[in-house]
Amino acid sequence: MTEYPDSVRRLMAVLKELPSIGSRSAERMALQLLRTGSSLPEALAAALLEVSSRIGPCPECGHLAEDGGLCQICSDPRRDRTRICVVDSPSDVITIERSSSYHGLYHVLGGTLSPLDGIGPDELNLARLVPRLDRPGDAKVTEVILALGTDVRGETTALYISQLLSQNEGLTITRPATGIAVGGSLEFADAPTLAHAFLERKAVR
Amino acid sequence: MTEYPDSVRRLMAVLKELPSIGSRSAERMALQLLRTGSSLPEALAAALLEVSSRIGPCPECGHLAEDGGLCQICSDPRRDRTRICVVDSPSDVITIERSSSYHGLYHVLGGTLSPLDGIGPDELNLARLVPRLDRPGDAKVTEVILALGTDVRGETTALYISQLLSQNEGLTITRPATGIAVGGSLEFADAPTLAHAFLERKAVR
Repeated sequence: MTEYPDSVRRLMAVLKELPSIGSRSAERMALQLLRTGSSLPEALAAALLEVSSRIGPCPECGHLAEDGGLCQICSDPRRDRTRICVVDSPSDVITIERSSSYHGLYHVLGGTLSPLDGIGPDELNLARLVPRLDRPGDAKVTEVILALGTDVRGETTALYISQLLSQNEGLTITRPATGIAVGGSLEFADAPTLAHAFLERKAVR
Repeated sequence: MTEYPDSVRRLMAVLKELPSIGSRSAERMALQLLRTGSSLPEALAAALLEVSSRIGPCPECGHLAEDGGLCQICSDPRRDRTRICVVDSPSDVITIERSSSYHGLYHVLGGTLSPLDGIGPDELNLARLVPRLDRPGDAKVTEVILALGTDVRGETTALYISQLLSQNEGLTITRPATGIAVGGSLEFADAPTLAHAFLERKAVR
């Protein structure tokens, strides 16, 4: 039985490490990349080497930043510097940005607490959060929004951070509202979400 | 609204050109690749550059070959050189190899005829097939197996090749049998396959 050449199998093995890519998808991708006359392998290699040399965490908030500088948000003078929104990952920043509902700064943890997986406070970008709240010469932060997931890990992390910040006088700590999705039908809401939505119901008049 | 940094967006655009990768998957892949401390971007770039510089079509059969030489199958002296199996793509070679049902040589067309898409005989690796059949000093090929798909394109290509080879005296042209899958239940066979299986039924005793 003859298998793919060694270099092709190495490529398939690396592709399989990408999220939700199994053996079959990795094989199809590798073969697509090998199609004669395609410049895709070189283009992809160049794009990868570019991000790997240029992209790193923003020294201020931990979001994706280019060339060792501040990220686009931290370096934007029009952002509201009295609010910091704490999120799990860079993709959460982009999701919130796309909703155009928030114009403050961010703080990207790079994960959520999960003691069973060995992820404690030291594994997250937490140490740099407290010094950001009250820095001489900078606007004083008045609100920290904990925009973390509503699963156990997100809840645990939110609880931990709110305790961490409890000493800060004059600081409001908030979380985004949970409830039925806007534009969604009641039948698509799961039971815990619906229960929460009823508990937090608002007077219309 | 702030989007991902330019270099990250370029990476996502290239990833989207891979088969069955949409915007959302490309985004998740790019973010996985950017996870701090991961050496995946460099590993993937290195694997891509390696295949792109080392892998090319075998000058004999068109299968994947390394470093400009013959492929593993053409260079294996134990293969039966009197049989050539014509297939669409390198992945078909590997699929047949994994079934351990064939020990001859291959000829990889690199596609199937599809006039509407501008794929005629000149776009396929066809010109090199006929000279392979009867070459002085080499074993004479006695059978060509047309292991192409049973869709319209595969059928058209098989018909074209069998006409192309009709002048070759003493050459048998075959196609793999079609019918119900082995180990499969009748209910999973589609109507045309079942009809064919009944038409080609075999006497048990």
